[in-house]
Amino acid sequence: MRILQHLSRSLAVIVLALGFGSVHAQDIKVAYHVNSGVETAAAILGNVRNHLNADATAKIVVVTHGAGIDFLLDGAKDSKGREFSGMVSDLAGKGVQFRVCNNTLTSRNIDANKVSMEAKIVPSGVSEIARLQAKEGFVYLKP
Amino acid sequence: MRILQHLSRSLAVIVLALGFGSVHAQDIKVAYHVNSGVETAAAILGNVRNHLNADATAKIVVVTHGAGIDFLLDGAKDSKGREFSGMVSDLAGKGVQFRVCNNTLTSRNIDANKVSMEAKIVPSGVSEIARLQAKEGFVYLKP
Amino acid sequence: MRILQHLSRSLAVIVLALGFGSVHAQDIKVAYHVNSGVETAAAILGNVRNHLNADATAKIVVVTHGAGIDFLLDGAKDSKGREFSGMVSDLAGKGVQFRVCNNTLTSRNIDANKVSMEAKIVPSGVSEIARLQAKEGFVYLKP
Repeated sequence: MRILQHLSRSLAVIVLALGFGSVHAQDIKVAYHVNSGVETAAAILGNVRNHLNADATAKIVVVTHGAGIDFLLDGAKDSKGREFSGMVSDLAGKGVQFRVCNNTLTSRNIDANKVSMEAKIVPSGVSEIARLQAKEGFVYLKP
Repeated sequence: MRILQHLSRSLAVIVLALGFGSVHAQDIKVAYHVNSGVETAAAILGNVRNHLNADATAKIVVVTHGAGIDFLLDGAKDSKGREFSGMVSDLAGKGVQFRVCNNTLTSRNIDANKVSMEAKIVPSGVSEIARLQAKEGFVYLKP
Repeated sequence: MRILQHLSRSLAVIVLALGFGSVHAQDIKVAYHVNSGVETAAAILGNVRNHLNADATAKIVVVTHGAGIDFLLDGAKDSKGREFSGMVSDLAGKGVQFRVCNNTLTSRNIDANKVSMEAKIVPSGVSEIARLQAKEGFVYLKP
């Protein structure tokens, strides 16, 4: 009977694993990829806000590199004078995460202190976007 | 022997489940994300046509929002005077689906009657793109 | 006892299959989608280089179509006179693969001999990008 118990337990583990897989899959996780400049930021933040309005449980991570980091720098404004810190704080309060590429900070000589308190610095924006998809079950969206 | 039968049946279910997973995966499903304006529409529709020519069983859904909806509005033309309704109908006849973001219609004050009969209106373009990937096995492509 | 042995073997196969799944998943595979012109090539190749610096085991395939193939044509330069063949060879030496869309070559009347020796020609760039994701476990990134 011990082999039966063993088999039974193995089956239970597999079934649980498959089950938990589908539980985890219920909330949609989305990586927003942003490398376009500050003039596109208002529309992009509007996309994220609309996304959450349509799907309140979506987990959204906005990964920025290149010119895409600019709206997350202190005092960022577009040519219409629109500031982004309020919208960023508001979205962060709803669970949206913002990430900034350290390679970009280095190559553009930008001090890490200039980056918004709401954002986390990651070593590489592009590898972070790939990692979120390959390892953490995120889907991709480039606004 | 009942426990053996039970185990055997459980195993069969798991194996079948894994098997069906790979059967469903055979036809490739692709979400085309379009948020660029009418000047890019001819090239994008050309990409979709070429995609189908290369892979006739591909299931393609074109999800539009922002300026991306314009080629699906009645009488849409680009600056060269090219109309899109013929190409859209042709692709729809081959199984391509077109979806238009209702948030965009609302924010731009566009009447739903102006949207092509070939397109379906969805509440949010961005959440639709995420949903197709996370829940329906679509891959992503931004032309 | 034969049924027990059979069950036990079936379980072992399933557990192995699940296990091998996770082994294969360890190296991240990324399809870079490029359809923007030669002026964007230096930044894109820099993204790929930074990606490999951050994740040396990443398998990167750069799939090009439309204007995106231009940096892979013989003698390609941007408006600053920067050539790309050295950077392409360097990345190819690190395992990066480059693919060029044959539909683009045909529609633009470009001879296949003009394509870099480092690149492979595929029938359709867009269907290749979908195939890599749907069939070979690649994630997507559009730089």
